[in-house]
Amino acid sequence: MTGLFITFEGGEGAGKSTQVRLLQEHLATIMPSDRIVRTREPGGTPGAEAVRDFLLFGEHDLSLRAETLMHFGARYDHVDRLIRPALEAGKVVISDRFTDSTAAYQGYGRGMGDPAILDLIASLRQQTGARPDMTFILDVPRAMARERLRARGNRPDRYETAAEAFHARVAEGFAAIARQEPGRCITLDAAQPPDIVAQAVARHVATRLPMSWGQG
Amino acid sequence: MTGLFITFEGGEGAGKSTQVRLLQEHLATIMPSDRIVRTREPGGTPGAEAVRDFLLFGEHDLSLRAETLMHFGARYDHVDRLIRPALEAGKVVISDRFTDSTAAYQGYGRGMGDPAILDLIASLRQQTGARPDMTFILDVPRAMARERLRARGNRPDRYETAAEAFHARVAEGFAAIARQEPGRCITLDAAQPPDIVAQAVARHVATRLPMSWGQG
Repeated sequence: MTGLFITFEGGEGAGKSTQVRLLQEHLATIMPSDRIVRTREPGGTPGAEAVRDFLLFGEHDLSLRAETLMHFGARYDHVDRLIRPALEAGKVVISDRFTDSTAAYQGYGRGMGDPAILDLIASLRQQTGARPDMTFILDVPRAMARERLRARGNRPDRYETAAEAFHARVAEGFAAIARQEPGRCITLDAAQPPDIVAQAVARHVATRLPMSWGQG
Repeated sequence: MTGLFITFEGGEGAGKSTQVRLLQEHLATIMPSDRIVRTREPGGTPGAEAVRDFLLFGEHDLSLRAETLMHFGARYDHVDRLIRPALEAGKVVISDRFTDSTAAYQGYGRGMGDPAILDLIASLRQQTGARPDMTFILDVPRAMARERLRARGNRPDRYETAAEAFHARVAEGFAAIARQEPGRCITLDAAQPPDIVAQAVARHVATRLPMSWGQG
């Protein structure tokens, strides 16, 4: 029995963590809650969360290739110790970010679409050992995203403080990924109210749930 | 103009850092000292040294694949920002450890020679962007290595405190690498006095130095 792997992608302030939570709550009404695993990247396991702190808040500065390997290092731990075992146990895994974020942020954002870095990402991705069945790309105008981040008031990480041109390239990156894999990626207008977005997510997910879980 | 890339490999307490220093001092007598770069792994650049601290002294625990990617992440930063620029400027780069250590420690030591991890290491190695011209593998009986480490009295890192069976596999790993690449790897008996080992190193290196540097 294999489970279902659902990822949410998009820039900062797109509402990913809200949608991850709403999907988890919705699924818990139609299936046993211990069959649902909610996680995030970078992070998701103790080791990968340590790498997350290192990458997002560390004082160091790494070359683009090095930064890319560190993200995949955290991801391999996450896959080896949480995602793959959960999927093999037939669970639904919902992750706030996954490989598409590395492609968008390192490949398109920092790497400006340089084929050498996109090739490195593609090769590491192929060896990841887990592939999302469905990916929701939450698209929101940058002005609205900035407003949401301001309202949140958390300590900003190194991406949230990056220049606007960087965020524009990241958004173009996510759009390129959605075009390349239309069977997996569903782009949603995340400027809509969260409950409207959540209903759209739930409708799409319902089409992929095994009948045995019921789809009340 | 391309430089010369020399690496020293071997287990803890084999005398690598002593030999790196002695080779640097020797070369400085026959060529301008600003043409010689001495470095180490994991580390060698500010970012890679931060990864070194994370890997060797962190409280976390990473899956083998994840740990392998973190080592290569540090290495890519080291290559991008120090080794490749120095070689392109025609310098001699002497590194205390490089990719063979990842093969020996992660591939043979922790990974027990599992083909999947050796393949991952081979693929990351191919993309590293720098390859040693000569590698000295310092071989020393484990009892002598332990004695040297005790005498040193530094804070032991996570490898120095590993089990003896682990160190035996690492030693077998270095021996396997030396057999696979006899043109690059020179195994030296590092139980000999350091100055004897250093003379052997200097003789081997002399055969590879450009004539223009003189070989006094």
